[in-house]
Amino acid sequence: MPSPEPSSAAAALRERLAELDDLGAAGRLLAWDQQVMMPPRGAAARGEVMATVERLAHARATDPALGALLDELAADAAQPDAGVVRVARRDHLRAVRIPEALVGEIALAAAAGQEAWLAAREARDFAVFAPALERNVALRRELAACFPELAHPYDALLDVYEPDLTTARVREVFGALREGLVGLIAAIAERPQPPELRGPFDVGAQREIALLLARGLGFEDDGWRLDEAVHPFALAIAPGDARVTARFDAASLSGLFAVLHEMGHGLYEHQVDPALARTTAGTGTSLGIHESQSRLWENLVGRSEPFWSHHYPRLQAAFPAALRDVDLAGFHRAINVVRPSPIRVHADEATYSLHIVLRFELEVALLEGTLAAADVPAAWTDGMRELLGIEVTDPLDGPLQDIHWAAGELGYFPTYAIGGIVASQLWEAIRGDLPELDAALARGDYEPLRAWLAERVHRPGRTLTPAEVLRGATGQDLDPGPLLAHLHAKYGALYGL
Amino acid sequence: MPSPEPSSAAAALRERLAELDDLGAAGRLLAWDQQVMMPPRGAAARGEVMATVERLAHARATDPALGALLDELAADAAQPDAGVVRVARRDHLRAVRIPEALVGEIALAAAAGQEAWLAAREARDFAVFAPALERNVALRRELAACFPELAHPYDALLDVYEPDLTTARVREVFGALREGLVGLIAAIAERPQPPELRGPFDVGAQREIALLLARGLGFEDDGWRLDEAVHPFALAIAPGDARVTARFDAASLSGLFAVLHEMGHGLYEHQVDPALARTTAGTGTSLGIHESQSRLWENLVGRSEPFWSHHYPRLQAAFPAALRDVDLAGFHRAINVVRPSPIRVHADEATYSLHIVLRFELEVALLEGTLAAADVPAAWTDGMRELLGIEVTDPLDGPLQDIHWAAGELGYFPTYAIGGIVASQLWEAIRGDLPELDAALARGDYEPLRAWLAERVHRPGRTLTPAEVLRGATGQDLDPGPLLAHLHAKYGALYGL
Repeated sequence: MPSPEPSSAAAALRERLAELDDLGAAGRLLAWDQQVMMPPRGAAARGEVMATVERLAHARATDPALGALLDELAADAAQPDAGVVRVARRDHLRAVRIPEALVGEIALAAAAGQEAWLAAREARDFAVFAPALERNVALRRELAACFPELAHPYDALLDVYEPDLTTARVREVFGALREGLVGLIAAIAERPQPPELRGPFDVGAQREIALLLARGLGFEDDGWRLDEAVHPFALAIAPGDARVTARFDAASLSGLFAVLHEMGHGLYEHQVDPALARTTAGTGTSLGIHESQSRLWENLVGRSEPFWSHHYPRLQAAFPAALRDVDLAGFHRAINVVRPSPIRVHADEATYSLHIVLRFELEVALLEGTLAAADVPAAWTDGMRELLGIEVTDPLDGPLQDIHWAAGELGYFPTYAIGGIVASQLWEAIRGDLPELDAALARGDYEPLRAWLAERVHRPGRTLTPAEVLRGATGQDLDPGPLLAHLHAKYGALYGL
Repeated sequence: MPSPEPSSAAAALRERLAELDDLGAAGRLLAWDQQVMMPPRGAAARGEVMATVERLAHARATDPALGALLDELAADAAQPDAGVVRVARRDHLRAVRIPEALVGEIALAAAAGQEAWLAAREARDFAVFAPALERNVALRRELAACFPELAHPYDALLDVYEPDLTTARVREVFGALREGLVGLIAAIAERPQPPELRGPFDVGAQREIALLLARGLGFEDDGWRLDEAVHPFALAIAPGDARVTARFDAASLSGLFAVLHEMGHGLYEHQVDPALARTTAGTGTSLGIHESQSRLWENLVGRSEPFWSHHYPRLQAAFPAALRDVDLAGFHRAINVVRPSPIRVHADEATYSLHIVLRFELEVALLEGTLAAADVPAAWTDGMRELLGIEVTDPLDGPLQDIHWAAGELGYFPTYAIGGIVASQLWEAIRGDLPELDAALARGDYEPLRAWLAERVHRPGRTLTPAEVLRGATGQDLDPGPLLAHLHAKYGALYGL
């Protein structure tokens, strides 16, 4: 067959990418429904359906005809869809290097790992889970071996979630976090704590306030949903269909912050250039950049005094018994307490990163073979004592608390801390570009911030790499300095250090 | 390649059918979510995703390798999976006879037809829709031409929804319905009507009662959902995940009967033999048999005096203002009023079939080319006058009321009337086999009926044809006699004819 004209090759690519993105959308809906709507007895069948959709998508993504099309288009310098082609080619070239059999084994081990993890939690015994973790680690070694050109095998795992980030760079950055935070947290521990908020906070009223906050941020009733899920998450099924979840609990207001966090993820997806719809480039460029958006809205906006100066009167009115005697300054202090906890998802802005540093160090040691799965609990206890000064005794509060390793998601955790770092880097740039930001936040006007993020972060989707997005928006590479400066300044003031 | 061993061929077939059913499950979830959960702005993208999933499923269903596998297995008389093979082979041999291009054109015309239908409803002008209908009819002629061996082109359309049913047989059966019902309805029109129920009926209370009724019928909280949808429907996403929808309206109790109706569909899917899961045979055998189940629970159970003798006290307590002065006999009369209406979905048990007879006659004439789409409104007006004695003036109350023709679903309507006929045939058999049925219903015990239906109708799924199911359960072929006898007896008593 003669090779098609460039324009028809571009059209053929768009058709193939549309198909891949459509299968992705079906997978996203299956996942959303699984966590939000599905009756529990549907779980086994749902796993099969999701695996089939993923298998078909993988088969289409590794089709040699797609590779030929991408080679042809990549060779054409005048190609208007260059960003889309680059992303698609990267995905294809990566996918074809992983044997189909390994993809299947990884999926099976992830399912078995989650079962073993649940059984270990039931038994409160890490040993029940250790063999499954060992198996997941072994399969990740096989995966890494598909990319022998990388400097460190863990680079291949990072690459799944945070393209181009290296283990060496994470080590440097996390070293700086450890150095900059351990002392700060120890100093805070010496200071008196502010009074805590005391509920109960009616769950129905929280839901209403959450929706009000979400609408301010950009939630629109005809294009978004807010539902409840045990483990909150956000995703965009497709253009015009963004879905945010949260969990509300009468004992605290954490559900409100979960909504701000998930809205950050939702806004990123929502503001990607519509011209990238139905391609594989029309989504967030990495989990780290994604997490920077959720952290920015949750912490830098949502735990700030200007933000609550607008919303606090309404919150107080919604919970008069609990908040009548708490003024804005007291509320602001109470939502910015630093208190080391063994549980990552309960961690505050200052201690959170150290939970990640520990997990990263253990993952690298597991992959390198210098740590056996069975020895994780001891290493965990040592690490938590060293980093946060706390003693972990219950394995449910230790290495059995997260599902990630059970699901085989090694290399994922670092993106959470990267997100916090990037959020502070962006925030510095935003402060420079938007000198009136506090005034806007204090009147509930998020448009300037949303527009800045759309332009500098969201619109390009995956057509820019994470490093390109960061450099474009801030002029810098990944740098923990702004996060450390922010935390020292903020908690220095709040705790009178 | 040597031909695989029978057992491995059977395993290979199961694998392919599992994939097809998994894609079907993804499609069902996409459809359910579209009608129940999706934010409206997601509609355009959802259409694309559903089309992609369907296209991939069609490509897998017509794969020549599947055909070869089915030929091999069909030749093996000792094949234990014979029913599954027969169904899969029937689907495959049918699918490969329809050109891929025609499948695509039919999908596009259905999407365009629904747009034109909405525009025509907006304009209250059938002429806006007529060209799209003409196009859908023309494509159905092309589809029928793929099956030249059939006695009538409309047979090819019936076959999609009701395998093996012929146009000739529908003509006979519908002729008998027309003859048996027109006089009955005219006679009822001469008689005084019972007092109507007067609401309002609080929607929240209706929802609670509906759930209570559904639980009695077999709804289980960990394996079913009840949600609201503008056009109620039911489907099973997969084993352990049955979903029923309804619409509640304070002006009437029609939502309760919608739930009983949809539970009938849900129970059918729920009680198919689990050994047929993840094959293409593990679902209802035809739309007519499906509708027999919904009609049976809605009308023969749900509009009976024994059923309400158990539930009515609770209903009265839930709506004291509306029902305080209505006794059980009065309620039973009120929910069994016969009153011709131009709207099919508002029709009662007696007039419903005649709405279908009209649509069938028009569909056949359209396909034969003896009726032009533009002339449908006039034919409709004549037909409604003749069959139900009512004058249709607004096209929204006439041929623009149903979405089926817009979506290209010609051949679908007859199954609604077939369902009513089959329900009465089954009911006669059930009465013979379960002499204590009324007593069971009067104490809210549906287990004997549910077990009878599971055994005689539900378990075989598609491994028996509709005619085989009917013959196995009743010893008879399709026969409108029991429905006519039931309606004459019931309304004879209620209206003193």
